[in-house]
Amino acid sequence: MSGSKSTAELYTGYQSKMQKIADVRNAMAVLGWDQETYLPAKGADFRGQQLTTLSTIAHELFTEKELGDLLSQLRQHPELDAVQQKNISLSLEDYEKNKKYPAEFVAKMSQTTNECYHAWIKARKANDFRIFEPVLARMVDLKKQETDILGYEGHPYNALLNEYEKGATTTMLDTIFRDVKQALSPLLAQIEQQPPVNKDFLHLHYDRNKQWALGIDLLKQMGYDLEAGRQDISEHPFTTSFNPQDVRVTTRIDENDFGNMTWSCIHEGGHALYEQGLPAEQYGLPCGEATSLGIHESQSRLWENNVGRSLNFWQYHYPQLQQRFPENLSNVSLQDFYHAINLVKPSLIRTEADELTYHFHIMIRYEIEKGLMEGTIQTKDLREVWNHYYQQYLHVTVPDDVQGVLQDIHWSHGSFGYFPTYSLGSFYAAQFFTAAQQQVPGLDAAIIAGNYHPLLEWLRTSIHPFGRFYTSNELCKKVTGKELEFSAFLQYAKQKFMVA
Amino acid sequence: MSGSKSTAELYTGYQSKMQKIADVRNAMAVLGWDQETYLPAKGADFRGQQLTTLSTIAHELFTEKELGDLLSQLRQHPELDAVQQKNISLSLEDYEKNKKYPAEFVAKMSQTTNECYHAWIKARKANDFRIFEPVLARMVDLKKQETDILGYEGHPYNALLNEYEKGATTTMLDTIFRDVKQALSPLLAQIEQQPPVNKDFLHLHYDRNKQWALGIDLLKQMGYDLEAGRQDISEHPFTTSFNPQDVRVTTRIDENDFGNMTWSCIHEGGHALYEQGLPAEQYGLPCGEATSLGIHESQSRLWENNVGRSLNFWQYHYPQLQQRFPENLSNVSLQDFYHAINLVKPSLIRTEADELTYHFHIMIRYEIEKGLMEGTIQTKDLREVWNHYYQQYLHVTVPDDVQGVLQDIHWSHGSFGYFPTYSLGSFYAAQFFTAAQQQVPGLDAAIIAGNYHPLLEWLRTSIHPFGRFYTSNELCKKVTGKELEFSAFLQYAKQKFMVA
Repeated sequence: MSGSKSTAELYTGYQSKMQKIADVRNAMAVLGWDQETYLPAKGADFRGQQLTTLSTIAHELFTEKELGDLLSQLRQHPELDAVQQKNISLSLEDYEKNKKYPAEFVAKMSQTTNECYHAWIKARKANDFRIFEPVLARMVDLKKQETDILGYEGHPYNALLNEYEKGATTTMLDTIFRDVKQALSPLLAQIEQQPPVNKDFLHLHYDRNKQWALGIDLLKQMGYDLEAGRQDISEHPFTTSFNPQDVRVTTRIDENDFGNMTWSCIHEGGHALYEQGLPAEQYGLPCGEATSLGIHESQSRLWENNVGRSLNFWQYHYPQLQQRFPENLSNVSLQDFYHAINLVKPSLIRTEADELTYHFHIMIRYEIEKGLMEGTIQTKDLREVWNHYYQQYLHVTVPDDVQGVLQDIHWSHGSFGYFPTYSLGSFYAAQFFTAAQQQVPGLDAAIIAGNYHPLLEWLRTSIHPFGRFYTSNELCKKVTGKELEFSAFLQYAKQKFMVA
Repeated sequence: MSGSKSTAELYTGYQSKMQKIADVRNAMAVLGWDQETYLPAKGADFRGQQLTTLSTIAHELFTEKELGDLLSQLRQHPELDAVQQKNISLSLEDYEKNKKYPAEFVAKMSQTTNECYHAWIKARKANDFRIFEPVLARMVDLKKQETDILGYEGHPYNALLNEYEKGATTTMLDTIFRDVKQALSPLLAQIEQQPPVNKDFLHLHYDRNKQWALGIDLLKQMGYDLEAGRQDISEHPFTTSFNPQDVRVTTRIDENDFGNMTWSCIHEGGHALYEQGLPAEQYGLPCGEATSLGIHESQSRLWENNVGRSLNFWQYHYPQLQQRFPENLSNVSLQDFYHAINLVKPSLIRTEADELTYHFHIMIRYEIEKGLMEGTIQTKDLREVWNHYYQQYLHVTVPDDVQGVLQDIHWSHGSFGYFPTYSLGSFYAAQFFTAAQQQVPGLDAAIIAGNYHPLLEWLRTSIHPFGRFYTSNELCKKVTGKELEFSAFLQYAKQKFMVA
């Protein structure tokens, strides 16, 4: 019974190995979800250990020689269809990248990440960046080593960017953030001239249960399938997927901040619709995975901002909202509500920033990360650099480290190269939404009528089903006819914020 | 750097391998818990696949040659302490048992279990045992094969009993169930002569939220640590442990049945207290695992029945209960309440049976399983055998299969040899509780005062900390001075049910 296997047999073998790895990773995702939603306090240590074990197993499975051999063999089989070939070449790419990491490096990174995270927690408690700095310095050194391990063309930071957004480069981002600076700064200056906006009514008391019901209704109306997902409460809202049939979102509710839950629901709903729309038959394979973080974020932000903060959206929802919270909103007009939820104002905290100033927050982090990687910025100067940039670009004075350089968790996790995907997400969202408006007749009218089927249908046809078959850039060209450009976002921003 | 490793190094190696296996199994437990509590409907298929993958990985890890070699090596090291030696010998026993199963058998069993479960579901829907019978027949054949694979002394059924209750034999169970028949039958006849008891007030409307609050309060008062566990709702109540710091219970609430939640809470609380009391430093090792199913069940039943259905218990709790549900209970005396919750009456459904007739339900299943394994009973005759036994021992006529031979899930899972542990649990509970009353001064008085610390303290000293260091039988002798005897239960039953 020896002899060579057929292509189909080999491919099935590959598929089942990849699905096994996916099963382990998705089990980790379940444990992670549980950790953020329901884990009892004392269970944290053992949970950490269980996650480490599963992570080691997944890593072992994904570096098995047999898998590598299978992938090399399958690369030679031209009778595979295009999707199968793409799966093989992407898996091989992932596999070879994985193999590049020396075991000592992985161990050291894991150890340093742990220390770095705890130092960050400690530093935040003491509101003192200097507690975080020495460990962060070691983390930055490791990330520099990682750029060498991974290899890169052009700037070393490209190696890290590539981890989150395949094909992204400093050349591309320099151009985009130059546009941000050049086009958004004058826009902001103009907006600041506009009459003051009252948003106090967003901070009256909004009942927890009523907010929850609103969130669930919004998710349902967007088309989120609650039979293939669920919503729970967690400290920080997130979306997690165990497979396209089980994609979960979480939210938080602040009874004195109407916006907190509402747009986090819509945002996570956008992520979740993407995951629910990935092809289930490609489970465990690259073409069953999200294209990139930037594209993922484009989906959440398209729903959150282009739809969920639009006048069209609230034309339908606002009268209902007034009925849900008459004590707070019966005397507030749709126009006033709309202006309040779209107030543009420079601020200190990225996660609370409006749609426009947000990108300065990202640009600052981008400049800093690039500088750290090329060695033009040192961690010991980071507080000063941070505060200087905030003054320069956002004209705000950072009063302390918790509201400054210590505000984000990302660096403590070693996630360098991640931040830019947030901005890319907004810019892709604008370009996609513009394309949808052009391609779907009556899209705006449907949204005004509270009907999101046409939009979801378009996303389900144009964006969701491809997984990693296309890169972000390829997908963008395919869908919009052009590479990513800042102009769509700028036009959207001008239209939205200058009309008022 | 070659050379032989020290005993301590070898033992650490063993420990970390076992903990890795435990991590995978506990990840499965988390996925299982999620499946019963929060899994969205459409996620079931992928979840099944993820569980199968983890189960395969755990099995692979536990049959690794390296582990076997390590265990054989460590068996030779007399400098290990008693607990370490016990861990090694039990792990070796488990390991060798695991190795006995041929891969084809495991695959066939997994396949058949799946089919059997679905046939059972289908048969229940149609209320027709004949749909279940052919698959069950194949399952029984496999279980017979399993007895040969495992090996046994005496009766083949012993091999299966041993899976759940190490050391249990048909000889021991025949004696015990003979006592059940001989002693409980006349007792039941006498009880039937007593005046009728009214329990209608237990079936008035009991508000869901108030029931939930009661359940949580009871769990807390028992000493269940809610920082190392939590309660959720599921269709069937259960306890699951991921480690002693994360032991979760579930319950269900029927607004028209006060007892449904109350004693399921106390029952699962008893299981959970045991798991929270296992030694965390033995995580992943046999001495960190529950002794046996019988001992586990002794803990749940001791709390549920010996404590939670006692007059002493309700002397403290009943006035509070009346305050919680005045509309239902203000006119019901403690005595009437106590009699209602302890009503003895032969019935059709095991899970709804009272403390006494329950054991006839188990005895019937025991006789049937033994007969199936020795070939004196055939699956094709099972409906008739079942109905006949119910008539003979419980004097009830089985009206249909759902209320008869199809009522339990166990056989569809291939769990033969499991049922007897339920009765053993009650009998161990009675013997343990009697010992506790003798050994803890003022135990009853404490319970009357709503103080369970002395009882829990005794359990935490006498039963919980040993894990599998002792077998059930050894533990029983150590704690009570005697092997398991039916007499303690009989005395408890007579005292409780004949006084009235």
